[in-house]
Amino acid sequence: MAVITEYLHFSTQGNTDILDITSDVQFSLDKTKLKKGIVTISVIGSTGALTTCEFEPGLEKDLKEIFQKLIPKGNYHHDQAWGDGNGHSRLRASLVGPSLTIPFDKVKLILGTWQQIIFLDFDNRARKREIVLQFIGE
Amino acid sequence: MAVITEYLHFSTQGNTDILDITSDVQFSLDKTKLKKGIVTISVIGSTGALTTCEFEPGLEKDLKEIFQKLIPKGNYHHDQAWGDGNGHSRLRASLVGPSLTIPFDKVKLILGTWQQIIFLDFDNRARKREIVLQFIGE
Amino acid sequence: MAVITEYLHFSTQGNTDILDITSDVQFSLDKTKLKKGIVTISVIGSTGALTTCEFEPGLEKDLKEIFQKLIPKGNYHHDQAWGDGNGHSRLRASLVGPSLTIPFDKVKLILGTWQQIIFLDFDNRARKREIVLQFIGE
Repeated sequence: MAVITEYLHFSTQGNTDILDITSDVQFSLDKTKLKKGIVTISVIGSTGALTTCEFEPGLEKDLKEIFQKLIPKGNYHHDQAWGDGNGHSRLRASLVGPSLTIPFDKVKLILGTWQQIIFLDFDNRARKREIVLQFIGE
Repeated sequence: MAVITEYLHFSTQGNTDILDITSDVQFSLDKTKLKKGIVTISVIGSTGALTTCEFEPGLEKDLKEIFQKLIPKGNYHHDQAWGDGNGHSRLRASLVGPSLTIPFDKVKLILGTWQQIIFLDFDNRARKREIVLQFIGE
Repeated sequence: MAVITEYLHFSTQGNTDILDITSDVQFSLDKTKLKKGIVTISVIGSTGALTTCEFEPGLEKDLKEIFQKLIPKGNYHHDQAWGDGNGHSRLRASLVGPSLTIPFDKVKLILGTWQQIIFLDFDNRARKREIVLQFIGE
């Protein structure tokens, strides 16, 4: 059993920019030489989130629209105090959650054929993003 | 320390069909002979999700209704491209999340008395479902 | 590799009472003497949830307001059967999720500078709360 830490770095556009990071996580898994275990994928920061979906252009639009419907851009208490205008980004990120744990076996992430790991950048500006991958397995 | 992979299989009705899988997960834990650790429970596919609740008929109805309120069935961009009519199912699944990690100790899942592990099948049709359980512990 | 179980106890006020538990989790991590791994933080009970945010008074208000907007207090099927009046609390808790897994390295939780681990107590009354921390690492 071993613990192996890897980091991914991305440039994002913000405003519910959605990145399919499945192949990046799989590539990092290949490098670890671990066969069987779990990977905890966690975004460093309070305006990004992780989940899975079938990543295709229609659903990408739907995700942007549903978050705008549920937690619209607007004037939140956070914005009044901090002036960064990303209160909605923070609420969306807290709702979806910053961290996702996915099992793997035979050096392969266990996911459906049409199931991708996505990183959602809810911030209201372009960012440099860091995501940590903590692999535990054997 | 060991990693042990188990799979659960269910037939579901879709349309926010909710299954209490607590005893199935506990039964799989018993089989592993592990005493202390965590289990990552993860659905294979993009229209199911995992969380916990007090599973009783009233709340089961409430869950169906709140998801219909938050993310109603309708015509999403996904549906226009793919014609499978389950855009809402995918959005609901991404929001709740595909994976849940629960600690165990003394060969017992650590949950509240009225806290059950539930699998929500948001798809719009009956499905055969596969859920992976990745146990890590000693 | 080792598994170490710790428990945190809090008195909460309910009604989306939000506690920053980051320093409690870090303090427990220090005690374990583990350097590298993950911690699964899980609330025992069906009306609490865990996520991260920048914990400051403005966002604390925003979180209370957004949950009241998305899943308002009201008369749910659960309440009709059980009379505890916390159907909304249970729905909110299921949506956010009861469990959060965070990586650590060099005996330090890997989080952003403005990213805190928060416990949300959605119940409609003051509670004594128990949160389990399952550390796995080396």
